[in-house]
Amino acid sequence: MFRLELTLKAMQLIDLRRITVVGLGLLGGSVALAAAKALPGTEVVGFAHRPQTRRRARQLGIAGKVSGDLAGVVRGSQLVILATPVCTFEGILRDMADALPDGCVVTDVGSTKAQVHRWANRYLPGRVQFVGSHPMAGSEQRGVGSARADLFDGAVCLVTTAGVADPRAVHLVSDFWTHLGCRVRRMTARQHDRVAASISHVPQAVAVALVNATAAGDLPLAGRGFRDTTRIASSPADIWTDIFLTNSPHVTRGIDRVISHLGRIRRSIDLQDRRRIERLLIGARDKRGRMMEAWKQRKGRLT
Amino acid sequence: MFRLELTLKAMQLIDLRRITVVGLGLLGGSVALAAAKALPGTEVVGFAHRPQTRRRARQLGIAGKVSGDLAGVVRGSQLVILATPVCTFEGILRDMADALPDGCVVTDVGSTKAQVHRWANRYLPGRVQFVGSHPMAGSEQRGVGSARADLFDGAVCLVTTAGVADPRAVHLVSDFWTHLGCRVRRMTARQHDRVAASISHVPQAVAVALVNATAAGDLPLAGRGFRDTTRIASSPADIWTDIFLTNSPHVTRGIDRVISHLGRIRRSIDLQDRRRIERLLIGARDKRGRMMEAWKQRKGRLT
Repeated sequence: MFRLELTLKAMQLIDLRRITVVGLGLLGGSVALAAAKALPGTEVVGFAHRPQTRRRARQLGIAGKVSGDLAGVVRGSQLVILATPVCTFEGILRDMADALPDGCVVTDVGSTKAQVHRWANRYLPGRVQFVGSHPMAGSEQRGVGSARADLFDGAVCLVTTAGVADPRAVHLVSDFWTHLGCRVRRMTARQHDRVAASISHVPQAVAVALVNATAAGDLPLAGRGFRDTTRIASSPADIWTDIFLTNSPHVTRGIDRVISHLGRIRRSIDLQDRRRIERLLIGARDKRGRMMEAWKQRKGRLT
Repeated sequence: MFRLELTLKAMQLIDLRRITVVGLGLLGGSVALAAAKALPGTEVVGFAHRPQTRRRARQLGIAGKVSGDLAGVVRGSQLVILATPVCTFEGILRDMADALPDGCVVTDVGSTKAQVHRWANRYLPGRVQFVGSHPMAGSEQRGVGSARADLFDGAVCLVTTAGVADPRAVHLVSDFWTHLGCRVRRMTARQHDRVAASISHVPQAVAVALVNATAAGDLPLAGRGFRDTTRIASSPADIWTDIFLTNSPHVTRGIDRVISHLGRIRRSIDLQDRRRIERLLIGARDKRGRMMEAWKQRKGRLT
């Protein structure tokens, strides 16, 4: 059984003669670089809307071929990976649908999933499979100039489905990310959006609110604590606007939870309740300590 | 005038035959190591309450002499630096007051200042000067084992006064931190507590609330963004309880501001108001960008 699965997986990845990355920013560029390294027998082609990005991608050798013709670039691809801001997916899926070859698998690197699956369901023909991906890698930087072949080394990649999914397509996509260095976790798009809000989208809103709430005149005195706590607030605004818009119920509920917990700390400070403050601080410290322990163990196993 | 000031400053530091560090944790241990390195002609002695800390400090060569006798260890010192949790200062100031020699200058490394100045005013005799210090260095780690001689390299140190202060004492303390590698900024204790809440205490409360608000089951999937945003939530609970208790009005007001800004983001997401979300995100990104630019320029000048 195990052997059979391995063979099947290997066959599928070997079958990839060409993959197309749509969008060559930090993530798309890194996917192209990492795929070329992990799958030397596969042609990697890239699409970028802006001529400037195409020029830069060619200079950096991001992909074997870089084009501004979406339909042309997905033709003949067995795997297409969308790596533009989430809200652009709707138009891209619609525009490339007819050009996708039979049996093609489409995936993405977007940070929200339920809405993306709905668009894929609406615009892609039945002869094409969509499986969602969310590699939990990246940084507050952007642009093809920040792309790195090792961006996905050791990262978690959430692979998502909604409704009935072709297991071979799910295998192919999972296997692709595993070869790029990811630990794959499969879940439904709905589960994904809840957990992604919790560990990524809500922290983003919190970092932004913290920066916005701090007087500009105080910032020259800020130290490493403030810099680290707010690092992600330097992330691209357009990408995050799309994420908030396409995951609004989970994000707003998560923000409400943080507001409620800030209220608890606030009240215990206001009441000068030493025991209660200490309990809240110890709770957070221990919870984060367990997270860091688990993370270090995983990292240790990988290196 | 400039020349005279320089001579006066130099004389004062050279006059330091002995300095005493009270409390040998991360900060106190680092002060002792850094002072021994920066002022080779000065004897550095340390006080620690717990026998275990004294043993460890002796093993690590943190100070020339390590003792558990507070009165004994401050006798003959021209400069005493308190480096225990803020709420212990009251008892320490009271207990060591009689043993402090005439003309001795007392300072501290605590993260809040107005309350500390009130205690100093109440317990220290007129023949002793108190000047507050808050070196903005440290980490989420604790204990003498984490002490480092270079902890203060390039850090900002806020030097505070409340009411009338002897300019020579302020000079001595400022000069001490400058020699340890700090950039000194002088301000009143009141100004300090407002700005420290803004850039340090409120972010601490925010990081704690974020960890407490996140389901433990989601944490294994958290990436670098979550880890960085919450790093300071792993800081020692007792130290931070003291900070919140001794700076409660500024901290609670700051938490209210963050809650209000979280509410703005929440509402704009709930209304699917793309423009407003983007404006809030761009505002934070640009504000933080200016902070990082200024920080990099300062760092560049130092290295």
